Amino acid sequence: LNKFDLETPLVVVDLDRLEENIQAMSERVRPVGAHLRPHIKTHKTPEVARMQVQHGANGITVAKLGEAEVMADAGFDDIFIANELIGAKKMRRLAELSKRVKVRSCVDSIVGAKMLSEAANEYGVAIDVLLDVNTGLDRTGIYPKQATELGREIERLPGVNLVGVFSYAGYKPAIPDEEARKAWAVREARIAVSVSEELQAAGIAATEVSVAGSSSAIYAMSVPGVTEVRPGQYVFNDAGMYRMGICSLSQCALKILTQVISRPASDRAVIDAGSKVLTTEKRIVSGQDPGYGLIEELPEAQVTALWEEHGVLHLDGDARRLAVGDTIEVIPNHVCPTINLTDVWYGIREGVVEQEFAVAARGKTS
Amino acid sequence: LNKFDLETPLVVVDLDRLEENIQAMSERVRPVGAHLRPHIKTHKTPEVARMQVQHGANGITVAKLGEAEVMADAGFDDIFIANELIGAKKMRRLAELSKRVKVRSCVDSIVGAKMLSEAANEYGVAIDVLLDVNTGLDRTGIYPKQATELGREIERLPGVNLVGVFSYAGYKPAIPDEEARKAWAVREARIAVSVSEELQAAGIAATEVSVAGSSSAIYAMSVPGVTEVRPGQYVFNDAGMYRMGICSLSQCALKILTQVISRPASDRAVIDAGSKVLTTEKRIVSGQDPGYGLIEELPEAQVTALWEEHGVLHLDGDARRLAVGDTIEVIPNHVCPTINLTDVWYGIREGVVEQEFAVAARGKTS
Repeated sequence: LNKFDLETPLVVVDLDRLEENIQAMSERVRPVGAHLRPHIKTHKTPEVARMQVQHGANGITVAKLGEAEVMADAGFDDIFIANELIGAKKMRRLAELSKRVKVRSCVDSIVGAKMLSEAANEYGVAIDVLLDVNTGLDRTGIYPKQATELGREIERLPGVNLVGVFSYAGYKPAIPDEEARKAWAVREARIAVSVSEELQAAGIAATEVSVAGSSSAIYAMSVPGVTEVRPGQYVFNDAGMYRMGICSLSQCALKILTQVISRPASDRAVIDAGSKVLTTEKRIVSGQDPGYGLIEELPEAQVTALWEEHGVLHLDGDARRLAVGDTIEVIPNHVCPTINLTDVWYGIREGVVEQEFAVAARGKTS
Repeated sequence: LNKFDLETPLVVVDLDRLEENIQAMSERVRPVGAHLRPHIKTHKTPEVARMQVQHGANGITVAKLGEAEVMADAGFDDIFIANELIGAKKMRRLAELSKRVKVRSCVDSIVGAKMLSEAANEYGVAIDVLLDVNTGLDRTGIYPKQATELGREIERLPGVNLVGVFSYAGYKPAIPDEEARKAWAVREARIAVSVSEELQAAGIAATEVSVAGSSSAIYAMSVPGVTEVRPGQYVFNDAGMYRMGICSLSQCALKILTQVISRPASDRAVIDAGSKVLTTEKRIVSGQDPGYGLIEELPEAQVTALWEEHGVLHLDGDARRLAVGDTIEVIPNHVCPTINLTDVWYGIREGVVEQEFAVAARGKTS
């Protein structure tokens, strides 16, 4: 089956590029000594997580319990839930999961820590957590100055082991400036390491320092004291990362296969890929409106408008040859929400469909 | 089971409000004489479509074949696919569907019409289509001036019956101006009716005139010659529609139940609802940044930032009482992509969970 025999719109992944991306990240992290614990929210697919582990990943990172449960069912036994878990039902699920696999989660409040402690007592387990520290993203996370005090309070709670520090600082300025990005990544790592050192000085064995994502992992991993990095998007990459200078176009492994369904004006084509496959995320870089995705094969075609099941292309020059029935590929601006919209994707090698993959960890809201 | 016993984040729908919205639209359309053919892309849930038909809807509208197939399986026998279907595989599916139920689709090109004609011949069926006319949205649709010529060409093709005119003009100016919205809706309807009249004058029995959505149906339906309107969002409504003055807050039936998972600063809370449940759609009205949803119970809380699994609230005044573990409800800016993200939603009556609904037509990319 050739990829063009598939019914549009759908998600296709070049398996050679996927494997190269996975291998390249492993080869960059390995010599440094930090562990690679990839975030699987980008693919939500056990087969891809398995490729990552085969290439040397030390466990996986997930965003929520539902993803952790799917991955545990698929045989993964070392899972970090990179988020605060709150409430009695999530405590029960976490305790049950901790009886099956090695699992860690995050905490950034004494309220949350007490819930974990009570669950540890109720279900007869010990729960390992990382202290979530705000290193500049201003999302979750305790401020570094307050970290040791909270660490001491948590340490007094039975059943909860504070084993390290967690941080995700992202990268807010949307300009393709590698030096600034590197500086931000190093800053994040240094703050996290210093919090870990302060906790250790207070007698708490919080030796793990887990930081960074795909835009920062290769810089953060070299900071002494960092024990693991958690990139996710690097497996597929996307148009937003390309525009930021984080990957090349040839490293973009995932594309939307879509068909021209209407050709109502010389400068306009309509494709069957809308926001229900591409999402409306723009990921604006350097103030330039990128439209809703990137068409590598037709630089003179821009996805200028999007409805749920329609993408409108503005066409110049050679792109005006597009006709009803033509199939093209669009690289999404942000790959993570795109995978979250589909139940399956197709693995392609040299244009031929090799395997259908189920997005097994999709649809788990909590 | 009380709704607060459900595990966050998830989608809850007030069933009383849902039924009131369905009934109200039916009562507005019925006296006018136009048919109501609601667009089910908003809910993708057969049970809701059934409520719409029980309240007098004449068939349903869907966005794609996958939705049509699910709805046919659920017993709906009069389905309009409001989109261009292109390609051999879709032709086969359309032909097979047309043997089971009354189905219509759209066409706006001779290339597309020829595909329909060939499929009609190959599978031994007759295929009814509406001519998609561009009434100002500049998405798909032939320009009105070219419509009669295309209509004549289609009429000469065997197996394809051109039974009417289709239009969706949406409403682009994002200002809450009811008169402008009404004028736009009436304009759309008049153009569509005039194209239908021209086709009929040319001897083509294109008598159906199907127009409008939730922002325009109640205005378009009164234009003489309009035979049906296709509102969808009105069943749930959303914060974008509220800000545009299309519905009241008390008509917003669907909300995201979410929990505070972090309370890292006096003016900041983090909820477990991120872009994977709320989407990043803003639906900006009057140039005001609305954030990523509306919290009716806490006017001093704004969803100012969103990551995939985190929503950051900026808190003022009374909203600062929010604590870790508190559950709140967020009305999404745009309800259609939110439903498309979840596999199930919960029907609530007076705070009590009455029924779990499967979003059965979700996940059908084509």
